This record gives sequence, structure tokens and C-alpha cells, in this order.
Amino acid sequence: MKAIQYTAFGTRPKVVEVDRPSPGPGQVLLRITASGLCHSDEFVMSMPEEGYPYPMPMTLGHEPAGIVEELGEGAVGVSVGDAVIVYGCWGCGVCETCADGSENLCLTGMVSPGLGVDGAMAEYMVVDSVRHLVPIGDLDPVRAASLTDAALTPYQAIKKVLPRLVGGSTTVVIGAGGLGHVAIQLLRELTPTRVVALDIGQEKLDFAKENGAHEALTSDASAAATIKELTGGRGATVVLDFVGADVTGELAVACAGVGSAIVVVGAGLGGVKVGLTSAPYDISVQTSLWGRRKELLELVEMAKRGQIKIHTTTYSIDDGEKAYDDMHAGRITGRAVVVP
Amino acid sequence: MKAIQYTAFGTRPKVVEVDRPSPGPGQVLLRITASGLCHSDEFVMSMPEEGYPYPMPMTLGHEPAGIVEELGEGAVGVSVGDAVIVYGCWGCGVCETCADGSENLCLTGMVSPGLGVDGAMAEYMVVDSVRHLVPIGDLDPVRAASLTDAALTPYQAIKKVLPRLVGGSTTVVIGAGGLGHVAIQLLRELTPTRVVALDIGQEKLDFAKENGAHEALTSDASAAATIKELTGGRGATVVLDFVGADVTGELAVACAGVGSAIVVVGAGLGGVKVGLTSAPYDISVQTSLWGRRKELLELVEMAKRGQIKIHTTTYSIDDGEKAYDDMHAGRITGRAVVVP
Amino acid sequence: MKAIQYTAFGTRPKVVEVDRPSPGPGQVLLRITASGLCHSDEFVMSMPEEGYPYPMPMTLGHEPAGIVEELGEGAVGVSVGDAVIVYGCWGCGVCETCADGSENLCLTGMVSPGLGVDGAMAEYMVVDSVRHLVPIGDLDPVRAASLTDAALTPYQAIKKVLPRLVGGSTTVVIGAGGLGHVAIQLLRELTPTRVVALDIGQEKLDFAKENGAHEALTSDASAAATIKELTGGRGATVVLDFVGADVTGELAVACAGVGSAIVVVGAGLGGVKVGLTSAPYDISVQTSLWGRRKELLELVEMAKRGQIKIHTTTYSIDDGEKAYDDMHAGRITGRAVVVP
Amino acid sequence: MKAIQYTAFGTRPKVVEVDRPSPGPGQVLLRITASGLCHSDEFVMSMPEEGYPYPMPMTLGHEPAGIVEELGEGAVGVSVGDAVIVYGCWGCGVCETCADGSENLCLTGMVSPGLGVDGAMAEYMVVDSVRHLVPIGDLDPVRAASLTDAALTPYQAIKKVLPRLVGGSTTVVIGAGGLGHVAIQLLRELTPTRVVALDIGQEKLDFAKENGAHEALTSDASAAATIKELTGGRGATVVLDFVGADVTGELAVACAGVGSAIVVVGAGLGGVKVGLTSAPYDISVQTSLWGRRKELLELVEMAKRGQIKIHTTTYSIDDGEKAYDDMHAGRITGRAVVVP
Repeated sequence: MKAIQYTAFGTRPKVVEVDRPSPGPGQVLLRITASGLCHSDEFVMSMPEEGYPYPMPMTLGHEPAGIVEELGEGAVGVSVGDAVIVYGCWGCGVCETCADGSENLCLTGMVSPGLGVDGAMAEYMVVDSVRHLVPIGDLDPVRAASLTDAALTPYQAIKKVLPRLVGGSTTVVIGAGGLGHVAIQLLRELTPTRVVALDIGQEKLDFAKENGAHEALTSDASAAATIKELTGGRGATVVLDFVGADVTGELAVACAGVGSAIVVVGAGLGGVKVGLTSAPYDISVQTSLWGRRKELLELVEMAKRGQIKIHTTTYSIDDGEKAYDDMHAGRITGRAVVVP
Repeated sequence: MKAIQYTAFGTRPKVVEVDRPSPGPGQVLLRITASGLCHSDEFVMSMPEEGYPYPMPMTLGHEPAGIVEELGEGAVGVSVGDAVIVYGCWGCGVCETCADGSENLCLTGMVSPGLGVDGAMAEYMVVDSVRHLVPIGDLDPVRAASLTDAALTPYQAIKKVLPRLVGGSTTVVIGAGGLGHVAIQLLRELTPTRVVALDIGQEKLDFAKENGAHEALTSDASAAATIKELTGGRGATVVLDFVGADVTGELAVACAGVGSAIVVVGAGLGGVKVGLTSAPYDISVQTSLWGRRKELLELVEMAKRGQIKIHTTTYSIDDGEKAYDDMHAGRITGRAVVVP
Repeated sequence: MKAIQYTAFGTRPKVVEVDRPSPGPGQVLLRITASGLCHSDEFVMSMPEEGYPYPMPMTLGHEPAGIVEELGEGAVGVSVGDAVIVYGCWGCGVCETCADGSENLCLTGMVSPGLGVDGAMAEYMVVDSVRHLVPIGDLDPVRAASLTDAALTPYQAIKKVLPRLVGGSTTVVIGAGGLGHVAIQLLRELTPTRVVALDIGQEKLDFAKENGAHEALTSDASAAATIKELTGGRGATVVLDFVGADVTGELAVACAGVGSAIVVVGAGLGGVKVGLTSAPYDISVQTSLWGRRKELLELVEMAKRGQIKIHTTTYSIDDGEKAYDDMHAGRITGRAVVVP
Repeated sequence: MKAIQYTAFGTRPKVVEVDRPSPGPGQVLLRITASGLCHSDEFVMSMPEEGYPYPMPMTLGHEPAGIVEELGEGAVGVSVGDAVIVYGCWGCGVCETCADGSENLCLTGMVSPGLGVDGAMAEYMVVDSVRHLVPIGDLDPVRAASLTDAALTPYQAIKKVLPRLVGGSTTVVIGAGGLGHVAIQLLRELTPTRVVALDIGQEKLDFAKENGAHEALTSDASAAATIKELTGGRGATVVLDFVGADVTGELAVACAGVGSAIVVVGAGLGGVKVGLTSAPYDISVQTSLWGRRKELLELVEMAKRGQIKIHTTTYSIDDGEKAYDDMHAGRITGRAVVVP
């Protein structure tokens, strides 16, 4: 079968021919119907050779949608032909955080498809356990695939601060890309907050507004002052940072009000400096990593009710290399999805 | 000045002529611009003579909007001419629950305008403290007046269960009247929940849908079965009971799912029976009384953003007796408001 | 091997000889080192024949401690010889509540050892999955066995109200028996609350005090007045009802203060009636069923640190019938444990 | 009367003779019985002349205990002779955060005795409003005075993370001084957590253990490794940083585990850097400023029950200059209190 793999350090993803895998005991084989691209894929391919933690070559893709093709021995609870998406945080299921329903924080270290084992950029893929499959019924797999990360990641970030997002609140979203545009939609569905998106370039600002932002501002030094003005001097109630660089961390603090919260989602190798006198009083800064399985179940229901519409650009698997090049060059609005 | 008063046991409200009051130290005199009617007024007038806790006669009206007319000695923080509404839970400000910002639960017993001291059904009214005034700026006072109870009461009830109202949830609203129709609007603005309204009569069901209910069902024995079906057998995530009778309590339990919550808002002299084996597992039943001052501030911001539109029918103060008769007879859709 | 089984309707438990079971794929065979008795066992044996949901005969016992004797095919993560206790809420692991870490609320219906499949009142027992085993290291199995229910059930009940149990709070514990005495210990370890135990008979009241209750009162009509007096008129912050009858429900409401919470743990076929005007304002009544696996992990840590000491009376398996008779007759203080 | 004042930039506190103040309308005059010293006093005296926000001279002291001596016009709710302590966060009482019961975060800027107006280092002091008085009954004023800050500040910090401090948790307290030693006591009373104190010098480590720390470690590079070892590799559940310097911020992150929380209480002009990949996953860092009035009420109840014992060293007002010198030189263990 065809697969898009990362095959050697310093190279770009390649479309290759590999053997179709077979499901072991308890495992499930999916025929892939859609597979979302993510900046994390680029992050993996930028990692140095020394200490690189994954097998090489490895099929990319951690946002899978598919149809159950074959059940391994003892795998029960789904049927051949079921349409599913895959929860990508494959924890041990036994440790304290897994016992709490947070496989994304598994204490023994989670493994993910495309981030440790072969992923979804292929015609077929093996899933380790039935519990990581989430039925989607009639949902369009192209739109459903990216629920698994592009929606789940901002959803968890928003849930961490949901009780703060009451009437009269203001939320700043830094970065209106693949995750950020879904964050804007989710904020509008989940809360009465006013959404102010910050990004660079008119196209991104227009995209933010199309997705529901009340205001879209250029992410520069003047943004914080504008936000203070919009809020009568209060500052933002919540800031979601989908970039995670030092410069966005400083911007987040500058936008934030007394008693506010910042959630850092982006893995931009920077962060936020928090001190009693160097930030607004009573501030909270949290990081958020992917999401919980229960949250993915909630998102599937929201998608079924038409409350989330991930903006997608599709590519055939043969055009997979181009898809990665387009993402790398910043030419994608929303999310790129490979349809094998 | 004119006032609508409850003047004797067993009588209906009367429009009477009384002296215009003067503000004492720290108090504020308002010229009333709008004053909402509430079923609590009828509740007061149904109380027996023995043990009746309020003065007689007493001007009714605990949903005031007005313009600051005169400041008592030492009253600072507002100016003559300011447009305000009045937070009606006048607590002591000192006790443990007041210290927590919950004057509605004041341990020394709150006093309210129209429910203990002269209220807002008059041309002028005295407010005990500047802290109970909430500026409304340009908001229409007719629509803003009822924020103080008809919106605040369901808002607090919803906030008690807000973390449960995630993607995929279902909320049942029993009673789509003066408070219930605002509850429906608030649920739609505050959460992604599916709203199922229960009431009696096509007019009420249509009204519920106009206010945003996804489904509106006749409140009878079949309703619970329909809700189980709508939720794939799960039952409701939350039930808000704006009636509070035994029959609605039983209906609430019948609609509720495992791990669900019921909030009883209506003072219908009945209630909900909760036991480990007589209700779905892990159920929570709470009562909710009016709301916190901070919550009223939040609602004013929501109203300014156009997120709440209380449906009102207005009456002149001279038609005040008719207004009470219409409410008593169930002829009001939404909220009746007297405009002096 | 020997086992204590419920063998026919209307009979008492019997010590019988049965075949030693074998672990299937993914399962684990334990050699039982301790097995706690619970009033739920009596509840099962009181159920009518019509609609009885369990197999007959069935080995009793849902509080197991044991040593791993044999691993079924594919069972990994534990080793032969490991000392463990068993989390008894065997959910599907896949549904929404299991995904949330609450197997005790499994939507497909949990199965438990001794409550659906053969339990721990035997020399050996099969556990369905490694994830239901909790290592206990050097803990005394007799004391550790009852952590699985007699400690886990009150622990979850307390966690539901933990944020309320601040400085100056008062908690009423109704029923100081097998679960109640652990609740008292847990309240003292987990919170600064003042604990008032209610029970009948001097022996029970003394036992409550030995376990840490600040006050122990006879559970009669005067108890509520005494509690109001102790709290300067406020009433209890929290009431934990380990009986669950109508009479204890009424007592709970009578003891409760404004803004308080009642948790019903006992399955006494009664309950609490909650209405806006028939109970203190802003009350919350919840039911609580067993507990979460993560909570059991937390309890094992507390036991290792010496923070829980379940009071036990031990019996040999040959004396198992007498153990049940003693529990039935109310002759047990704390928890009865069979040591095969 | 005598007072200890800050009288000129670059000088140390001086005992001076000033006029006894009179209470204005709504105000209350206290005869001071005890007044705690705090490092914040030193912080004020280290502030540069340019932009200095307070009057000069100013009587120091924001931890007052006293007896009501005289009531200003209209001040009701206390009586001459009542023993009280003073909640020091004097907010406007009207704004959104005050409405929420958080005067310590007043949006218009709180004023405090000794930090904006004349404080408690004097024979008499004026309090702005009855609501800022907290009755203490028979409590020793020397021990009660410091409840207002030395206990309230760590209490609020702990309450921010209380739901995390479950069975099996570990809390690191950085700095076992005036606030830190109370934090240790509070953690032991409020939670089952294991407390690990970090400080420098054997005397401080012994003091931490006397106050209830399970472990006391020298605050150096090896501390984080020791904590990882103590926790089986998990790291701390919570870190409370009572220093707030960059070096303690780095230490806090090094000690912290996946899913942990850091609360920065100390105003040491540094802070904690938070990023997705530069700290354990799912971390939360918050700052905490003083506390809420309701929390002070809770602490008074705890003190009455003997659950807090602030370690104090007393000085006469004539020795006030020496008291400040001793604190400045680090010669105080626990809290220094001036008794006029």
C-alpha cells in the first residue's frame, strides 16, 4: 500500500510503497478515509538525530479517520464497516493519570500513531485498542479527522478556563491557524465571551472573522493597548496562545487583566514569565497538551450538531509531498487533509 | 406620587397616592423608569396574615430600573442622572455569605425592595446603598429592569451546573415563562447544550422555540420517554425546574440521566425526592435562590452585547392593577413591566 | 477450593467446595489473602427472585486482597507474587463515563466480583483485567482489602464536597459503622472540619469518638437542635448519610444550614426531599456510588502513610457463615474480613 | 500617642509621638492590642522616591488586633469593647471583584492600613468601615493579629490548589519563614499531603519540622532530585514559593511533576518561566495576593479550634525600631509582633 513516511534525517516526507499491516490481538485494522496534517509533523522532522525517540522510517499522521477493515483476536465492541476516528493519545490505561481518564498525560509515556508508531498517512493503519476508536456515524471523514487534534487541543485548552468565560468576558486568541480557527468557533459555541483574534496578514485576520472572531487585530505592539481600550481598561479575561514563543508570551501578559488566565498551547519553544509584581495580580498561566478521550466524544457530538466546521484543504495521497510543502510554506488556510 | 401597593390581606394590588420618599444617609433616590412584575409578588399576597413578615401597606416591585434623582448624605460613586438598575438582594454586607459576595444568602436575612421595604412600583424609590446600583448606560430600561430577577435567577441556576454543559449535553427546561424563556436564551449563549423546553399549550411551546429551544414538548407523562429517546437512552444532563411542584420534581427525575443535575428554581411548594436507588446514580439536586451581584454585572454586559432580549409587555402605572390581573390569569407571555 | 456462596433464594451464605478457576486471556488469577464483608452482600441476598440479575450460585465478596498466582494469556503489567487489592467497578472501559475515569458509572452497566461474577470469598479468584489490580506492597492485606469499598465509598462522597470543608466548617456523619467510621477518619485527615457523628447506642458513639469524631450524638429528634447550637445557629456545612432511609433524610435536612450539601451514600431505600422552601436555601443533595479507580490509588497511598486504619474483625473461611451471621445481627464493630 | 512611622526615604522606622486620630462617619477607632511586622513593610521602605505611592510620613503596620474604642457616626454592627482583628484589603466594595468578595483584587485599587493610610504600629488606629473588622472573642490578640496576613496569604494560596492535594500528594514549601511556617501548619490541617519544606540553615529546617513538615531539605541544586526520589519519580503535586525570585522559580519547576501547580506568593521580583516544552506537561503557575475577607473569617474559626498557632516574638512599641532591625537582619523566627 501507499504511505507518506519520514525516511531519513534532513529529508522531506516521501510517498512510498510498504506492506499492508495486520492487526495483532486486541488491535484493529482501519482503511484510512482521511488523515490530517499537523505542524507537529514538522516538529518531529526538525528533531536532531541524537536522542530522536521514534523509529525511522515512520509513517506520519496522527489525525486519522477510517473504516474498520479487520479485527484482531479478542477485539470486541466495533464491527467491520464502522466509520471511526482515532483518539491519538495511546496511554498505558493503568497508571494514575490514565485511571483519571487523561491518557494524554500517561505517566509511562504515551505513544501516538505518526508519533512513535506508524500513523494514518497511508491506505491502512493499525490501532492498538478498541478504546481508542470513536464512532462518527455519518460525519464527513475529511472534516471529522481533524477533530482528533485540531479541535481536541483547543477544546481542552478552553475547558481549562471555561468557568471564567462568563458574560462580559473577553478572550484573546493568538494565532488563527489550524488550531486557532477552531478555537474561535469553539469559544463562540461554548461561551458568551467576546473573541479577539491576533495574527499577521489581512488574509489571516479575515479568516479569523469568518470563523467568528468579534475583532481581529494585527499581532504587534499596539494590540495590547487596543485590547485594554476594548475592555474599558480591564484587559483580557483569558488569553490562548497557539504559538508559544517568548514574543507571544510577552504579548499574552500585556493583554491580560487582573485575575486572568493564559493557556499556552503552542510548542514554540518559548513561554510566559510569571511573577507577583511582573504580571497582573492573581494571574494563572497553564500549559495544555492535546486532550482527553472523553473530550473527543463530546466534540463528535458537537460536530454532529453542526457546531464545528473545520476548514479543510484536501490532497490525494499521491500529492502528499506537496501537502507537506504547502503547510511548511504557510500556504494552508485551516487544515490540510490527505484522502487516500 | 403614584404607587402600586399591597394594602390589605385578601385584596389585589391598588394604585394609590403616597408621599415621595427622601434618601437618608448613604441612600439614593431613583426616579423609576421601569419596574418588572414577578410571580413572587403573587406569592407574597398569598401569604397568611399570621406570621406575615412584611409591613402593610407596602409598595410592590423588586425589578427596578431608574435614574438617580438625589443622593443621600455620604452617598458617593454615582451621579444624579445616571441610568441604573437595582440589585434586589440587600444583605448586611458583613456576614460570612455577604463577605463571599452572596448577599442573596445573607445570614442575617436579606431585605428586598417590594419584599420587605417599599419597592419599584412607584414614581420614585429609595435604594439603601450605592453598592446595590448597577449602571446600564444606554440600555432600554424596560428590557434592563427584568435583568435583576427574570435573568439573574436563571443565570445563577445555570452557573451552578455550567461545567456539565459541555459538547453533546442536553438540558431540559421545565416552564417557559418569565424566567424560563430567559433561561433558554442564556443556555444558547452560554453553552453548546441542546435545549428541550417542557410546558403546556401550543403558545408556550412556540414561545420556547422562538427563544431558542431546539425542542419543545408538552409537559406530560410521555415527555421523559421522548427525552430518553432524543439522548440515545442517556437522559438529560441537566434539568432546570422553574415550577418546583412535586409533579415537576418527579418529571425532572424521570428525565434525568446517570451523573446528571437538577436545579430547582420554582417555589411551587413541592420538590424532588433523592435517594441512591430511586433516582439515576450519581445525581445532584440543588435549589437556587435569585443571584449574586457580580452575576448581575455580567448580565448587563451580555445585554449590552445583545445576548439577552427579555420579552416584555408594558403597562402604565395607572394600568398597574390590570397588569397584575393579567399576570395572575396567565395572560402574559414573557415579562410584564410597569412604566411610570 | 473453598468458597462462600449464595446458593438459593431465602438461604444464608454457605461454605462450599468448588473448582479452582483458571484465568482466560487478559485475566489474572489471585490467591485471596483477605476478603471484606459488606452490607451490600445482605442487600443482594434480600433481592426477590423475580428480576434477580446475578447468577446463582455465586461466590460473594467484592473487597478482595490477594497475591497474583497466574497470568492469563496477554496479561501484562503485573508479576506472579505481587500483592494487590482489586478495584471492584469493572466497567467496559470504552463508554463516555469510563473514558472519564468513572468505571463505577459505566453506561453499559458495570459488573463486580461478588455482584455479578464470582467474588473474593474463596481461596482463589479471577480478575477480568490487569487495570483493576492495585499494588499494595507491604500493606497488611486484612486492612487493605476494605480500602476497595469501605474506604473508597466514603472517600468519593467526601471528595464531592471537599471544597466546602474549609476552616470553621462542620460535618455530620449519620451512621458510624463499616463505612462511617472510615468517613470520620478521612474527614479528619482530609479537612479541618469539625466532625459530629450520629448513631444509636453508646458503643457506636464511643467507636465514633475513637475514630476521631469531635462530637458523637444519639441520632434522634434532638440531634438537629444540638447541631444548630454547636454551630451558632448556622447548621451543618455538610451531612453524609450512610443509612439512606427517609428518617435519616429528614434528619439530614434538619441538621443542614444555608448553602450546605448532603451526600446520600446508604442504600436504605429512602431519601431526601429537596425544595426551594422546604429546605435551607441553596442546598445541594447528591448521591454517591462506590468510587473511581484513581481514588483507590490515592487511598492506598494514604494507607501506606498510616492515614487510614480500618477497624477489622477477622474470620477464617470455615467461619464464614458465622461472619455473615454476626454482620447480619449487628455484632460487628468496623469491618468483618475473611482470611482464607 | 506613640506610633512607629516611616518618615523619610532612606531611613529606618522611627518611634514618634503623633495625635490620636478620630473616627469619621462610618469609621471605627481601635485601641491597638497587637500589630504584626511583615516583610512588605521593608518592601515599602525600599521603594524609590520617584513614583512612591503612599503618604510620608506614614504609620506602618497592616496586621492589626485591637479593641473597639469609639464608633464614628453611623457605624453599626460592633460595640465599644469588642475584640477584633482588621481585614487589611480595603477595596471600594462596589466594583466587579469587590462584588465577588475579592476586595484584595479591587479594580479601583485597594488601600491598606500601613500601606497607604496610617496603620497599626500605634496606640490607636482608625478603620474605614465596620465590614473590615473581624471579631475574635477570647483569642490572644498577639497570635490573632498575624492571622490577617501571615495566615491569610498562605491560606488563599493553598485554597487555589486545594482540590489537587488529595491522598498521596506531595507539596513543596519554599521558604519556612513568617508565612511559610503557617503554610506548613495549614497544609497539615487542611489536607493529607506530604509536606516538604525547603530553606537554608539548620535552624530554619528544624523550625519547619516543628511546624509539621514531613521533610525539610536545604534549598539547593540537589533538592529537586531528592523530591523526585521521594515521590517515586513523579515530582511534587504542588509547589508554594514564598520567595518569588528567579532562582526559586527555577527550583519550583525542577521539583514539579506532570499536571502539577506552582503558586508564587513571594514578591521577590523574579518569577517562573512557563512553556509547553520547558516545564512538565500540563503545569499551572499562579500568583496569589493576600486573601479574601471570607477566608479570614474561616481562619479565625480555625484559630479558635486550636488549628493554627503562629509562632510570635513580641516587642513593646518602644522597642519597635529594634523589632524592624531584627526582622531586617533575619533574626526573627516566625512573626514579630509589637504590643503597644
